[in-house]
Amino acid sequence: MTIAAPRSDGAEGPEIDPSVPTIDTVRSLAARYSNWGRWGADDELGTLNHITPSDIVAASGLVHDGRVFSLAIPVDEHGPQSGGFGRFNPIHLMIRDGNAAATGTVVRDFYGGRDRWIRGTDDLLILPLQSGTQWDALAHIVFDDHIYNGYHATDVGSKGAIRNDIAKTRDRIVGRGVLLDIPRSKGRPWLDPGEPIHAADLDACAEAQDVAIGRGDIVLIRTGQMAQCRADGAWGNYAGGAAPGLALDTVGWIHDRDIAAIATDTWGAEVLPNETPDVFQPLHIVLIVHMGLLIGEIFDLEGLAADCADDGRYEFLFTAPPLPITGGVGSPVNPIAIK
Amino acid sequence: MTIAAPRSDGAEGPEIDPSVPTIDTVRSLAARYSNWGRWGADDELGTLNHITPSDIVAASGLVHDGRVFSLAIPVDEHGPQSGGFGRFNPIHLMIRDGNAAATGTVVRDFYGGRDRWIRGTDDLLILPLQSGTQWDALAHIVFDDHIYNGYHATDVGSKGAIRNDIAKTRDRIVGRGVLLDIPRSKGRPWLDPGEPIHAADLDACAEAQDVAIGRGDIVLIRTGQMAQCRADGAWGNYAGGAAPGLALDTVGWIHDRDIAAIATDTWGAEVLPNETPDVFQPLHIVLIVHMGLLIGEIFDLEGLAADCADDGRYEFLFTAPPLPITGGVGSPVNPIAIK
Amino acid sequence: MTIAAPRSDGAEGPEIDPSVPTIDTVRSLAARYSNWGRWGADDELGTLNHITPSDIVAASGLVHDGRVFSLAIPVDEHGPQSGGFGRFNPIHLMIRDGNAAATGTVVRDFYGGRDRWIRGTDDLLILPLQSGTQWDALAHIVFDDHIYNGYHATDVGSKGAIRNDIAKTRDRIVGRGVLLDIPRSKGRPWLDPGEPIHAADLDACAEAQDVAIGRGDIVLIRTGQMAQCRADGAWGNYAGGAAPGLALDTVGWIHDRDIAAIATDTWGAEVLPNETPDVFQPLHIVLIVHMGLLIGEIFDLEGLAADCADDGRYEFLFTAPPLPITGGVGSPVNPIAIK
Amino acid sequence: MTIAAPRSDGAEGPEIDPSVPTIDTVRSLAARYSNWGRWGADDELGTLNHITPSDIVAASGLVHDGRVFSLAIPVDEHGPQSGGFGRFNPIHLMIRDGNAAATGTVVRDFYGGRDRWIRGTDDLLILPLQSGTQWDALAHIVFDDHIYNGYHATDVGSKGAIRNDIAKTRDRIVGRGVLLDIPRSKGRPWLDPGEPIHAADLDACAEAQDVAIGRGDIVLIRTGQMAQCRADGAWGNYAGGAAPGLALDTVGWIHDRDIAAIATDTWGAEVLPNETPDVFQPLHIVLIVHMGLLIGEIFDLEGLAADCADDGRYEFLFTAPPLPITGGVGSPVNPIAIK
Repeated sequence: MTIAAPRSDGAEGPEIDPSVPTIDTVRSLAARYSNWGRWGADDELGTLNHITPSDIVAASGLVHDGRVFSLAIPVDEHGPQSGGFGRFNPIHLMIRDGNAAATGTVVRDFYGGRDRWIRGTDDLLILPLQSGTQWDALAHIVFDDHIYNGYHATDVGSKGAIRNDIAKTRDRIVGRGVLLDIPRSKGRPWLDPGEPIHAADLDACAEAQDVAIGRGDIVLIRTGQMAQCRADGAWGNYAGGAAPGLALDTVGWIHDRDIAAIATDTWGAEVLPNETPDVFQPLHIVLIVHMGLLIGEIFDLEGLAADCADDGRYEFLFTAPPLPITGGVGSPVNPIAIK
Repeated sequence: MTIAAPRSDGAEGPEIDPSVPTIDTVRSLAARYSNWGRWGADDELGTLNHITPSDIVAASGLVHDGRVFSLAIPVDEHGPQSGGFGRFNPIHLMIRDGNAAATGTVVRDFYGGRDRWIRGTDDLLILPLQSGTQWDALAHIVFDDHIYNGYHATDVGSKGAIRNDIAKTRDRIVGRGVLLDIPRSKGRPWLDPGEPIHAADLDACAEAQDVAIGRGDIVLIRTGQMAQCRADGAWGNYAGGAAPGLALDTVGWIHDRDIAAIATDTWGAEVLPNETPDVFQPLHIVLIVHMGLLIGEIFDLEGLAADCADDGRYEFLFTAPPLPITGGVGSPVNPIAIK
Repeated sequence: MTIAAPRSDGAEGPEIDPSVPTIDTVRSLAARYSNWGRWGADDELGTLNHITPSDIVAASGLVHDGRVFSLAIPVDEHGPQSGGFGRFNPIHLMIRDGNAAATGTVVRDFYGGRDRWIRGTDDLLILPLQSGTQWDALAHIVFDDHIYNGYHATDVGSKGAIRNDIAKTRDRIVGRGVLLDIPRSKGRPWLDPGEPIHAADLDACAEAQDVAIGRGDIVLIRTGQMAQCRADGAWGNYAGGAAPGLALDTVGWIHDRDIAAIATDTWGAEVLPNETPDVFQPLHIVLIVHMGLLIGEIFDLEGLAADCADDGRYEFLFTAPPLPITGGVGSPVNPIAIK
Repeated sequence: MTIAAPRSDGAEGPEIDPSVPTIDTVRSLAARYSNWGRWGADDELGTLNHITPSDIVAASGLVHDGRVFSLAIPVDEHGPQSGGFGRFNPIHLMIRDGNAAATGTVVRDFYGGRDRWIRGTDDLLILPLQSGTQWDALAHIVFDDHIYNGYHATDVGSKGAIRNDIAKTRDRIVGRGVLLDIPRSKGRPWLDPGEPIHAADLDACAEAQDVAIGRGDIVLIRTGQMAQCRADGAWGNYAGGAAPGLALDTVGWIHDRDIAAIATDTWGAEVLPNETPDVFQPLHIVLIVHMGLLIGEIFDLEGLAADCADDGRYEFLFTAPPLPITGGVGSPVNPIAIK
């Protein structure tokens, strides 16, 4: 693989050693695969624009058996976070519980002393939006002071994103889903931490699974890392540590196929340690900021993958609408695959 | 309408004036329409059991045009809550924002001083689970010290529900959705606060819309109250005040049709003030605790209703999976109707 | 009153009409009364430097009777906030309550099923640090991109203040307190909303109360607005609405006396509407950013004021240490006056 | 030491082996040292009643040099909690920061687009009230379905404590403080985890320090465990693990001296593992529930202890008012010792 890497000022420069990609590589990829302006100067949807109504109709035709798979990990304190980037696992608290119903104190404390037979319970979440199964909004990553489509970083202020927030996608993440089960296609239970997934691996997997991938698809890429954590009985360094994931050369693969969104069963989608020693999560820069691609993370693909292996069908109707959080730079989601 | 109302001890008693239903009416309805044990002593799904895989396949066939409708109100501080029952509107806070990216302080504050080109933003919600568009879990209502299927109230403790929590439904709320647009069927923009919707109204609406309702359907009942709030430019007493909604005699209607779930565009689904002066939200007791019916509230049905009126089709594929909140007695949701 | 108002560039300029102070007035005051550099380039304490150990010894001698007054309003949902600036009233939630003890579910839910006789309760606050009785940290106000002592605004990042945070004052807010009960000195129950307190009013009050004010004192200025709210039975527009408070000419009064800190019984210390039509809370700019003065707000002075009126002693030992919140730009506090 | 331990039903029984205390020991101590009713059936203050106004006057006379010591650990994410009992370390978030001031977005996002020169920052804490330096309220511990003074456990409901909440003590925790520096009196840097502090140790320490302890005193007991954690550079198992602390026989010592409150530099004040294999934190039962004694935990006594060792004076004025949290079963506090 050779990635030409002109300097960021666009001037001609020496060839970069492709074995050591750098920020220049990232800039080159960003420039080559940028979708800024492609759907208008006001666009806030990015590659979700690839999905057309007829794609959705076609995707609904993939429902043959009525089996439904939830791809979310449980929302609770046992999630994978360990404090990095200020992220913690969700905190669930009861505002009013069944004990209060049983003791009758709910009448005293919440109903103004007036008993009208019913007893309700209520609860509350303190929820970092990047803590579990989630979509990164296009406002989630900033590079060179800008977010997708050229909006300035300051459009994501103390009160949230006024551009590219997750709420914009509220009715857009419905379409054909395709699972690429990379380790199974290689006859392994999971990829190793640090193992890259190259474009060729994606192609080989699709071929092995006999599934074609094209415009408007939402591609779920299984690395097996979540299965490995379960086998270990612990998340370990899942959140930010070494992980299998996408390599830099998948950018073109994603772009050329007009893929609408991707998601993986890892913390950060990309191979970690990253291929670029000087750049952290380079694909987030290229894919989110420049391509405008929605990335899903911490998807639990185990049950779905087992089913696909069983019946040989790796395509399905996929719905994963975010919560329409005004200004949100991400959203928890319970993605659903329907076969 | 006459609802026979034997006393709760089962003994013969005088006829109750049907014009003034009481707790005895509620107990009678609860006994008559109880599903406790119907799906086994361990069931935690209730009427969601009505949905079969073949129903889901059939529902996917309702997708003709590829139009997608999000039925959630925005998740933000401008929601309808005003403090009742300890509920407040969602609070959205940035952990790390685009300003920090623009000033470069994100490197200092979050990246340990090491700059690797990327800048991320993160955010957080403090979210009462009953604050906006939501599903009530079967653990949300307690009556006579019990929740659905006879579990004891104390199964909903300080740490959440160990029975009937919302996470149990994580892959179950997919099926055929039907909209009943009550005010439109009556040629009105909205029903009035305090106006009941009777079983006969549901039938008349279905007939006017030329749509049949049956086993496993998820029925969305539009009252128009949200449209009225928008016309007023304020939520007013939407949260807990007078509202149009379901009357007691809809219990049998729902039960006899084996409906899987219902949802409305109001705060509490039921007509308010309630028909029972001594019982608050009597249908919550009967439907949630005894029938085991999932109830959705604060659904925004305006866009969907306009579309249905336009093309005359009031049925669609409906997916509204909750977040799988361990122990949760409710969940925010972005319900999706696909036509 | 005439406030000379040279332009902010220090050049001679025309006299400003003192009846309409402007940003130029504010800049003039800021320049004249700035303490930047006064206690070193690294100072983060501002006028708290005025308090010496011997002042503290002397203040302890003011304890004659052993009466203690708490000057904090209750920390609960009934506070004065109504959403402005993103502030809400404190939210108190139980992690584990006495009902869980009474039903025994605490053993199941929190003690791993092992009963060792004890039952504990725990709780949690979600607490905007500016919501109730509070100290503004010197990092709370930014003017012309800087905070007190010339630190740049970006020293207050997404993770909090690395300069001038409230934790720096953790052991510094102890000394002689003096109450100036302005309305009582005028024979009135409270000052009117919009009524300014001028330097002359402070002097007249001190004289009427026969109390001298000097270096290192912490001056509590009663307007009576909290008493008015209590008489009304509602906070009304207390949070950010019209209020009695300090006028611009008190800046010199505060500066010349080397006062260590001030606090009032209002939301914002200053008269509202402000005297400067173009500048909001001008004294916050001058006092906090340039003078480095700690300002306390929403202090409940009613009980203390009644006692002072009763015994004629308006001075006392005052301790009001903040919580040492790392990076905090404010802190809730329970200030204590001991007489 | 022999602790007579009649059975809890009051009947005569065999002597209990004092080397293995049990729940019966705890019940015996509770009965012997109970203060229920001592200060009236309505009392919610317990041993704080021991402090009289003249004690406070006397305590103020202990201020000789004007040195002030803050005894609180920092309120931030680096606290000792690790999840036990649902407790986590404080979470500090900015509502509006200095970056927003520097970029100017604060005007757009918070000031309705109207620039009036000032820029404010605000912040927020999510704070488990038992997470750091704290007072346990008398509502914090339940035993045999009751809290201090015989109130029922259900007086601590989903909305907080309606009896014995921390707000009741808002103006009561002021008086003479005495430090007992146990390890220093033994010539050691700290006590070992699991090492008990017996009544005789307290006496020996007081004698070595030449300080008397009596009615109304607030006694701070240093074990040195926090110093050990600092030497280790990690909290380790500080939260709930093995710890030095008070032994059962200190109950009588505390009771007989009419001590008003105690505090230690450990997570739970008591020796851990506890002396009672069948009872967790037995002193919490006896001291809080039955004696009505306020217990402070996670106090940072290092700076104060060094000063006391230096000047040989172990007594001081002590003020540690809680935040007046309505219904709170605890409160963070910044305790202040003034010498």
